[in-house]
Amino acid sequence: MMTSPYAPRMGTIPKSFVREILKVTQDPNVISFAGGLPNPRFFPVQGIAEAAADVLTRADGSALQYGTTEGYAPLREYVAQRYRKTDGLDVSPDEILITNGSQQALDLVGKVFIDRQDAVAIERPGYLGAIQAFSVYQPQFHPVPLLDDGVDIDRLADVLKTQRVRFFHTVINFQNPSGISYSVEKRRALAEIVKQHGTFLIEDDPYRELRFEGTARPSMRHELGDKAVLLGSFSKIVAPGLRLGWVCASRETMAALVVAKQASDLHSNSFCQRMLHQFLLTHDIDEHIALIRAAYKRQKDIMLAALEAHFPPEVTFTRPEGGMFIWATLPQRLTAIELLERAAQEKVVFVPGTPFFVDGGGTHNMRLNFSNADEGRIEEGIARLGRIIKEMLA
Amino acid sequence: MMTSPYAPRMGTIPKSFVREILKVTQDPNVISFAGGLPNPRFFPVQGIAEAAADVLTRADGSALQYGTTEGYAPLREYVAQRYRKTDGLDVSPDEILITNGSQQALDLVGKVFIDRQDAVAIERPGYLGAIQAFSVYQPQFHPVPLLDDGVDIDRLADVLKTQRVRFFHTVINFQNPSGISYSVEKRRALAEIVKQHGTFLIEDDPYRELRFEGTARPSMRHELGDKAVLLGSFSKIVAPGLRLGWVCASRETMAALVVAKQASDLHSNSFCQRMLHQFLLTHDIDEHIALIRAAYKRQKDIMLAALEAHFPPEVTFTRPEGGMFIWATLPQRLTAIELLERAAQEKVVFVPGTPFFVDGGGTHNMRLNFSNADEGRIEEGIARLGRIIKEMLA
Repeated sequence: MMTSPYAPRMGTIPKSFVREILKVTQDPNVISFAGGLPNPRFFPVQGIAEAAADVLTRADGSALQYGTTEGYAPLREYVAQRYRKTDGLDVSPDEILITNGSQQALDLVGKVFIDRQDAVAIERPGYLGAIQAFSVYQPQFHPVPLLDDGVDIDRLADVLKTQRVRFFHTVINFQNPSGISYSVEKRRALAEIVKQHGTFLIEDDPYRELRFEGTARPSMRHELGDKAVLLGSFSKIVAPGLRLGWVCASRETMAALVVAKQASDLHSNSFCQRMLHQFLLTHDIDEHIALIRAAYKRQKDIMLAALEAHFPPEVTFTRPEGGMFIWATLPQRLTAIELLERAAQEKVVFVPGTPFFVDGGGTHNMRLNFSNADEGRIEEGIARLGRIIKEMLA
Repeated sequence: MMTSPYAPRMGTIPKSFVREILKVTQDPNVISFAGGLPNPRFFPVQGIAEAAADVLTRADGSALQYGTTEGYAPLREYVAQRYRKTDGLDVSPDEILITNGSQQALDLVGKVFIDRQDAVAIERPGYLGAIQAFSVYQPQFHPVPLLDDGVDIDRLADVLKTQRVRFFHTVINFQNPSGISYSVEKRRALAEIVKQHGTFLIEDDPYRELRFEGTARPSMRHELGDKAVLLGSFSKIVAPGLRLGWVCASRETMAALVVAKQASDLHSNSFCQRMLHQFLLTHDIDEHIALIRAAYKRQKDIMLAALEAHFPPEVTFTRPEGGMFIWATLPQRLTAIELLERAAQEKVVFVPGTPFFVDGGGTHNMRLNFSNADEGRIEEGIARLGRIIKEMLA
C-alpha cells in the first residue's frame, strides 16, 4: 500500500490563492488589485538605512548574536508604550512577544490553543492567513457571518452555546477581506458574550493605525482583560519585509506563547528588531503614518469613485473606513472566477471570494486591494473590470 | 471542572534548559560553557554594514516589501552553488527553502512529517532544539544511542524494523551535544538501512563548515537522494542574529515544506536575505570561515588541554573534530546537576546532560561549549570546575 510520507494536516492547509496569483503578476503591465501589499513608495528606506548604520556602528556584536525568545526588550517597551499612547491601554512589556509578522503570531496562537478537532470560531468571510495558520492544527472551524457592522452576534452566540470554542478570531478593524469594521455596539455585545462563555478573543488588528475616517475604537482588551489576545504588526506602518509584528497577551498566555516561539525559531531577527527600534526612536512615526493614511484614503476614494462610475449598479461593494481592501459582490449570474479568467487576459487581477470561506461560498465576491496600485492605474483597472462585467452580464 | 485553555501539546514541549541558564549568565563575571553561541568577535559587522547600505541604496522598495515564501532567489542559488562547490552535490535552487535559522527548518519538518503518535527516531543524546520542535507535533520518540563514530546501527535497525518511522534525525557532524561525527563506515551503513526501510533521513548539519580536523564527509544526499532532507545554517559562519538557514529537499517534499512555511510566517526577512546575499557576493566567505575555524580549533585545544590538566582521570570526554561542543561524563557517584549548583556559585556554568534525553539519562553528563568563551577564560573556567569536581569526589 502506498501511503503519503507526509502528515495528514498537509492535506488540510489551503494554499494561498493570493500568493499564487501574485506569482503571475510579476508582469509590470498587469494592474493588480490582488495582493495585500503596502505601497512601497512609503517605505522609509532612508530612515531604515540610517538606523541600520547606527546599530552596526555601535555594535559590539550583540546586534548579530542570538537574542531572547521574547524579543528585544526596548522594542517590547516601545510597543507597550504605544498601546498606552494610542489606546490608553495599560500593557506591560512582559506582555509583548515579538513575532515574525502577524502571520507567525497566528501560528503561535494555533500551536498554543488548538488541539485536533477543537472548535474555533472565525469570521465568514475570514482572513485567509489565519485559516491557513490554524488549519495546521486541524480544528473544526465555525465560520460566523459578518454583517455590515461586525460579526452576527446571535449566530456567534449559537456557536458559543453549542461548542466548546477555544477562541473567536476577528480582524476587528477594516477586515481582510471585507473591509468592514466593528461598530461600538457590536464591540460591546461581542465583549459580553465572549465573557459570558469564558472563551478567548483573538483580536487581530494589523490595520489599526490605517484609519482614514470615523473614530478609533478602543481595543477589546479594555473589556476582556486577559481573555483578549492582541495581534499587531509593523508591516503596514513601516515595512513588511522586516517581518516584525507582536502578540500582546496576559503573562499566563505569554508563558505558553514563548515556549511555542522558542520551539518555532528561537527568536525573531535580532538585527532587524534593533534597527526598527532605532528607526522608531529617531523618526516621527506619527507623521509617517499620517502620510500613508492620506495616500491610502485618496486611493480608496478613487477606487470607490471608479466603482460607481464603471461598475453596473447590480454590483455592490463595501466602503471601508481604513485598511487596504474593498469587498464587492457580483450578481448571482456571474462568478468571480469566470470574471478573473477574462480579466487576467486583459491584464487586471483581483482575488475571488472563495478562499475566504472554509465552508463554500464567496462564489460571487471579489476582494479589491487599493493600497498597492497607483492612482491612475486604479481608475484604469476598475474601468477595465467594469467593461468586462458589463459584457459578461449582457 | 477547570481545564487548561491550552492545547495538550503545550504540556509536552520541554523548555530550553539552555536558554534558561543563559538568562542567569548575563553577569559578565560568569564563565559560561552553557550556550551554543558563536564567538561574536568573528561577526563580520563591517561587511554586514556595507551590505546593508548597498542594498538600501539600490532599493526600489522591494528589499522591504513582502517576498516569495521560498526565499530570495539569488540566495537560494548561492546555497545550491555552495553545495556543488563544497560537496560536489547537484542541487537545484528549487530544492532550497530559506528559513529563520535551522530551528524553523526543524519546526517545518515536524509540521510536514509528524502526525500525533507517529514514530520518530532521534539520537541519544539528541539535539534539544529538535526535540522541542518535534514535540509540538506529539510524536513517539525512539532515541537510539550514539557510539563514538555515530549512531548504533543495530539498535536503529531494530527501531526501523518494529516501527513505521517517519524519519531519523541526525546532527551528523560534531553533534550537539556530544561533539561526535559519523565515520565513513557508519555513514555507509546508515544509508543502507535507511534505504532498506524507505524512511527519511533529516541530515541536520549546521556545523558542517566548522571542521578543524579530519576529512570532510559527503552529504548523505549523495546516497539517499530524495529521502535525505538537509538542514543548513548561516548562524555559525556569518551570524545567528540574522536568523537565516535553509532546508534542501526534493521538489515533492519542498512543495509540502513551502505550504508549511507560508502558514508559519509567509516568508523569511526580505531585507536580511538580500543583505546576506550582498555580503556573500562581496566578501571572501572561505577566508572568513578559515578564521573562525582556526580560532575555534585553538579554543577547543585549550579546553581539551585544561580538561586533561584539571579534571580527575575518572571524568571522560569526547574529542570533537569541529563544531562547538565537548561532552564529558562524570563518575557515577557525581551528578551533573549537583556539580552545576556548586559551579554556578563559583561563577562557571555548563549544561547538564538530562535535557538531551527524552527517556531519562544524562545524569552524569555535561555539555561544554568552547566557541563562546575567550581562551584565558576557558582555562580558568575548566580549572575551577576541576577543583570543584575533585572536592566533591573527595
